[in-house]
Amino acid sequence: MSEDIPARIRALEDRDAIRDLIAGYGPLADSGDAEGIAALWVEDGAYAVGGMWEARGHEAIADLIRGPIHQQLMADGCAHLLGPVAIHLDGDHAIARGHGVLLRRQGDANEIFRMSANRWELVRTADGWRVLRRDNALLDGTEAARVLLSLPTGRHPQ
Amino acid sequence: MSEDIPARIRALEDRDAIRDLIAGYGPLADSGDAEGIAALWVEDGAYAVGGMWEARGHEAIADLIRGPIHQQLMADGCAHLLGPVAIHLDGDHAIARGHGVLLRRQGDANEIFRMSANRWELVRTADGWRVLRRDNALLDGTEAARVLLSLPTGRHPQ
Amino acid sequence: MSEDIPARIRALEDRDAIRDLIAGYGPLADSGDAEGIAALWVEDGAYAVGGMWEARGHEAIADLIRGPIHQQLMADGCAHLLGPVAIHLDGDHAIARGHGVLLRRQGDANEIFRMSANRWELVRTADGWRVLRRDNALLDGTEAARVLLSLPTGRHPQ
Repeated sequence: MSEDIPARIRALEDRDAIRDLIAGYGPLADSGDAEGIAALWVEDGAYAVGGMWEARGHEAIADLIRGPIHQQLMADGCAHLLGPVAIHLDGDHAIARGHGVLLRRQGDANEIFRMSANRWELVRTADGWRVLRRDNALLDGTEAARVLLSLPTGRHPQ
Repeated sequence: MSEDIPARIRALEDRDAIRDLIAGYGPLADSGDAEGIAALWVEDGAYAVGGMWEARGHEAIADLIRGPIHQQLMADGCAHLLGPVAIHLDGDHAIARGHGVLLRRQGDANEIFRMSANRWELVRTADGWRVLRRDNALLDGTEAARVLLSLPTGRHPQ
Repeated sequence: MSEDIPARIRALEDRDAIRDLIAGYGPLADSGDAEGIAALWVEDGAYAVGGMWEARGHEAIADLIRGPIHQQLMADGCAHLLGPVAIHLDGDHAIARGHGVLLRRQGDANEIFRMSANRWELVRTADGWRVLRRDNALLDGTEAARVLLSLPTGRHPQ
């Protein structure tokens, strides 16, 4: 184990900041904070939903929150619940993998509207860690979601 | 970045302790540990469910676990599943925001009985971090839950 | 608070590594990475599902992923969603408690196929933290799950 105390502290801070950044996504989404969501990404960052669409840049990402689909979900009652993320930190870049589940109120019941795989690519900026790209794919038995959840090439747990 | 190594370590320890404290809530609730749940709070801490009720103090909080509603949920089979929390640390105080989902067994199926927003206010005590107040509101399309999930005033991600 | 900076950093690293190891379980399971899952455990580690079966060793654990039940779940579309874990670190050993929820696509809907309690026993190895034993029990109102979620004897939150 490295004796380089500052480097070890920085790695811990990096991992904590990434975990916290991603943990903020759901609360921001379900409070309808379009600007707050966008600010999780770098200015030209991307949010791609496999095979369907890709939003690039703060305005496009904020528009996802402002748009009719998200607003209807919020009016119905919804929860963008994320699972824990496994983080691979590599200097100024990182990859985090985890699940996302979108729960929606329907009449008197709540349903699992979507369940998906997420792969977050993150970068260290002068203002802290930000999302470079988030890829999302439905966990519907197809290959796309499995690819997103796979270990980054050549990496092992921890 | 600060060169104050002890302060940076303490901030990491604080954030880790808060994350762990909140992670303990669900296991304690679903094992029926009334005293263990109460001990997450300061002695005169509060657990408020928006517009419905507020429990204050260890005995009142423990009684929520001992009471017939919780005991019936446990007899049915239930999971108090929390999402990750985004933590804003400010000296000896902190705010953590995240989702809570209450899953319940009903006959041969499991249902999402409640989905809610949580805002935890925490304080550093001589015995470590404790909950000062937990506010909870149903994610049913009304405003209360959105307020709880909103960024603390004047704060930004990270 | 201890002034032993290296020990405090190591404790933070330990807790972070354990959290990350467990966070990797779901993504590995849902990407069908049998070897990756097995590698979370020590070579003779165990995965026990209360009252039903126990798999011991890397090959037996990998076979759970390769087997027909898991492969059918993946073909249907599934999410092995974990909740946050509360970690008790004790030198070279640790215990982590948390929920696991198995979501499954069924026709056009998603259902909560299983909800369970998890207790992970972990050990520090020369290659980092690994799972010694994972015990899992259905949250179906019976006692087994409650025992797994209970506080390790003689421990208190934090």
